[in-house]
Amino acid sequence: MIRLTLNQATELAESILLHNGFSPAHAAAVTATVVAGERDGCASHGLYRVIGCVNSLKAGKVAAAAEPQVIDQAPSIVRVDARGGFSQLAFQAGLPLLEAKARSNGIAALAINHCVHFSALWVEIEQLTAAGLVALACNPSHAWVAPAGGSQPVFGTNPIAFGWPRVGKPPFVFDFATSAIARGDIELHRRAGKAIPEGWGVDAEGQPSTDPNVVLDRGAMLTFGGHKGSALAAMVELIAGPLIGDLTSAESLAHDAGSKSSPYHGELIIALDPQRFLGVGAEAHLARAESVFAGIQGQGARLPSQRRFDARARSLEEGVQIPEALYRDLKALLGSDRN
Amino acid sequence: MIRLTLNQATELAESILLHNGFSPAHAAAVTATVVAGERDGCASHGLYRVIGCVNSLKAGKVAAAAEPQVIDQAPSIVRVDARGGFSQLAFQAGLPLLEAKARSNGIAALAINHCVHFSALWVEIEQLTAAGLVALACNPSHAWVAPAGGSQPVFGTNPIAFGWPRVGKPPFVFDFATSAIARGDIELHRRAGKAIPEGWGVDAEGQPSTDPNVVLDRGAMLTFGGHKGSALAAMVELIAGPLIGDLTSAESLAHDAGSKSSPYHGELIIALDPQRFLGVGAEAHLARAESVFAGIQGQGARLPSQRRFDARARSLEEGVQIPEALYRDLKALLGSDRN
Repeated sequence: MIRLTLNQATELAESILLHNGFSPAHAAAVTATVVAGERDGCASHGLYRVIGCVNSLKAGKVAAAAEPQVIDQAPSIVRVDARGGFSQLAFQAGLPLLEAKARSNGIAALAINHCVHFSALWVEIEQLTAAGLVALACNPSHAWVAPAGGSQPVFGTNPIAFGWPRVGKPPFVFDFATSAIARGDIELHRRAGKAIPEGWGVDAEGQPSTDPNVVLDRGAMLTFGGHKGSALAAMVELIAGPLIGDLTSAESLAHDAGSKSSPYHGELIIALDPQRFLGVGAEAHLARAESVFAGIQGQGARLPSQRRFDARARSLEEGVQIPEALYRDLKALLGSDRN
Repeated sequence: MIRLTLNQATELAESILLHNGFSPAHAAAVTATVVAGERDGCASHGLYRVIGCVNSLKAGKVAAAAEPQVIDQAPSIVRVDARGGFSQLAFQAGLPLLEAKARSNGIAALAINHCVHFSALWVEIEQLTAAGLVALACNPSHAWVAPAGGSQPVFGTNPIAFGWPRVGKPPFVFDFATSAIARGDIELHRRAGKAIPEGWGVDAEGQPSTDPNVVLDRGAMLTFGGHKGSALAAMVELIAGPLIGDLTSAESLAHDAGSKSSPYHGELIIALDPQRFLGVGAEAHLARAESVFAGIQGQGARLPSQRRFDARARSLEEGVQIPEALYRDLKALLGSDRN
């Protein structure tokens, strides 16, 4: 393993993205999210994603220098047209107006359109909780997941993320796929020649299958939580797809045309301002929310992001460690003059 | 079984509520929801609930004539203080301003406070979809459900409901508890002396239990979908509790003080206007949403409320049927002069 300080990780990611043609604004925005992923122990959203960014650019699937266009759509709606760039810079561009609208109106929505998306949603959620706002975010992905009772993919892995600000403590944050498991986990089982647990997928007839090849190639993944998870996946498909004038997971997969790039679609973020909901009583009511967390932690159960915040505390002290092979692959993207 | 036309069912419920002291406005609002439940084949939210309404009133747990107070809290927030009355009339009072705010601002929230709550959320969701709006609603209940990894109740059954308007068709609607199962289903197993399936509850040590007595009296119910369902239950607890200045499920249960009345707490409803999100492109994008439904139904899977809409179609033709014993119990609430 190679140990990097967070500054070194940042410098490495940013220089690769710049060297390969991304604009400084995109390089900085993407770097911030992949370093945050690595820092929080989420290697699947960490530095290795830089390789995917460069590949997406080489495949012509992402705009390297797109300037997001912020549109003041309605008193409580911001739209950002990402113009085919990565979502991170579009989110950053829309954030100030979303915050302003949530504070003045109490609740507001940010619709990001036409973005290439691979970011974890918690990175965005935490920018809203840091501003004292409650936040909800979701997006479609690629149609890999069957509805409850079905056998053919309709939904993406359709993540839902939520955040609640806490005074003097990390926020309450969750961020999960509405699929039973990440597609990457099934792919890892295929590579290892291992069966997958029941509940992850079905064959082409809708029967439970533990064969990763069957699930990935001919059947479909399943949602978590049976018909309830399936209903939530449909909700994400609708509100982060047609409601914001953007692609469904099926349309995004068709657009990909087999290139296996990051999905191209939209994202919906909703922000709510507790101060506006509660007025003078805000402090007392937010203190009452702490009793919910105390009720969970007091019996030894974990809050959703606790492990991630623990990893963050360690990384801020000790930096991050990445496999040497990954480090070499990343360095190779800097070109021979920098090796 | 006794067969009643929908008009007869309405007349029966309304006359009982009036006879027992509810104001005409509350009697009409409650009647509309329980008749809708019976009509849609949801007996658990049907006419038998009228008995609970009368019992709650006799126990001093609900205000019979409370006039909901509508507060224009912020440009995108309506609050309604139900003043200890049932939630139905409060929702009705807040609905016009919620609609107006959603239409002018794109997204708006309705916070109902201090209500006694037993209504199914789909009844309210469908009033918003009928107005062409997308809607999301949730509320806490009584603390009966343990967080993932725990053994003590913190959450209520905390339902989440969602609706999406469709042109010329019933809306896409789901409404489910974030608990694995309704508490009433566990109580039915107890009465029948039957074991419950694994996954519904735990004992006081957090171990899986199939004994309904253990789960109801000493342990706790579980959420659906493991840690993901548990995270959603926590979200409902927060956004329909402290965010709107109202009770958590634990506080609502404490307020009940063993009377076994309907929970007393708040409710959060969010409405989004597709016309405001989409502008001139609305029609085309909403037509694209139909491809999601076609993808689900085309492979023989069901939309969430399909069974309910089928029951509705039958009831509109044939009326509803209720057990003779329930009919007698209801008639008894009209007093001897009406029997």
